[in-house]
Amino acid sequence: MKVIVGKDLLSANAGQAGENRVLFNNNRVTVINLISAPGSGKTALLEKTAELLRGKLKLGVVVGDLYTTRDAERIERAGVTVVQINTEGVCHLTADMVARALQEVSLDQLNLLFIENVGNLVCPVSFDLGEHAKVALLSVTEGSDKPAKYPGIFREAVATVISKVDLLPYTDFDLPACLEEIQKINSDQQVFITSARTGQDLSHWCAWLEQLAAGKAKGNNLASR
Amino acid sequence: MKVIVGKDLLSANAGQAGENRVLFNNNRVTVINLISAPGSGKTALLEKTAELLRGKLKLGVVVGDLYTTRDAERIERAGVTVVQINTEGVCHLTADMVARALQEVSLDQLNLLFIENVGNLVCPVSFDLGEHAKVALLSVTEGSDKPAKYPGIFREAVATVISKVDLLPYTDFDLPACLEEIQKINSDQQVFITSARTGQDLSHWCAWLEQLAAGKAKGNNLASR
Repeated sequence: MKVIVGKDLLSANAGQAGENRVLFNNNRVTVINLISAPGSGKTALLEKTAELLRGKLKLGVVVGDLYTTRDAERIERAGVTVVQINTEGVCHLTADMVARALQEVSLDQLNLLFIENVGNLVCPVSFDLGEHAKVALLSVTEGSDKPAKYPGIFREAVATVISKVDLLPYTDFDLPACLEEIQKINSDQQVFITSARTGQDLSHWCAWLEQLAAGKAKGNNLASR
Repeated sequence: MKVIVGKDLLSANAGQAGENRVLFNNNRVTVINLISAPGSGKTALLEKTAELLRGKLKLGVVVGDLYTTRDAERIERAGVTVVQINTEGVCHLTADMVARALQEVSLDQLNLLFIENVGNLVCPVSFDLGEHAKVALLSVTEGSDKPAKYPGIFREAVATVISKVDLLPYTDFDLPACLEEIQKINSDQQVFITSARTGQDLSHWCAWLEQLAAGKAKGNNLASR
């Protein structure tokens, strides 16, 4: 059965999200809520990010999935602390689910925590998890019309990672049009044009994460949240 | 703001879905609810299907989108009757939205009506729209792990269209593993391994649709619904 999502539920969620945020701040850990459609490459991005940031930042990941622990297992193999949340069919993570997962994480030992949300470009956007920043992921195989069709996440994200650009030659993805669309929705946003397979632009992405974790990145309204 | 989805809402939806189904049956039009993640190629499939079935079946399409009318415009260019539903941010279609759209459709002039749901592999599955059959779409760029991770739609679908197989050489999609997974979740299901770009397997898909519209296709429990 599906979740009940009314005004009361959202305000209860906001309360728990606030508590999560205090916990994150007290432990000086920067938290990113990673949101995309199914199969955009969230897990692949996190695997590569873990490799590239090894020895630089202490990373943790909370992985949300409807069912299965496949993503968590993949990320764990990259040598990162992972906690799995199975939503049992619920289409997004809630602050409450994250709070329970946090009991399994030694936050004081981390610099940066990713929350990999359920693969869904719509519902997760409405649920604050206490994160400091949302990051959107969009693969080129999904089509360059997606920001206009799903503007919510692109409006809220401080950065968009365009993924799978190694497949660009085989698609009709219009990169300039897509970038223009993202710019139109939210001009105050970092965009990374990446491939987890070839490593393209991942060094910029990781440099940005380091800045973010140091509380310096532009667009990361840490103070105001 | 998001939709309230509780037991009461689902049973109200079921009532309207039943009314839609009576209307479809009275007009002898077969109705398919097409469900996938964003960017799996629902619209591209419908464009090609419209071309291939021209002169064979009278097709109509109801298109659900959060915002924009881009998909409807694309399908209209293929010469098909299209009605657009903008959900204004709601993550799935409801029977009620479809009922309102049907006021704009001459059902008695159609053989086959597609309802292209909002791009979302989770939420639309819970909402009966009055359709006779659900069809799942999964592009190879999303990864072969998706049926196990999002089993709901694959359990309910009478057919799965695997799309974008022209991109198979450039991905690590494991087709045999994916087919086995689908088989495990729902063994009574048609699978089409297609590319809208090259046309691969679309003739089988269209032949199956013709059978379905004639009420003969296996797995289409028209009578029992």
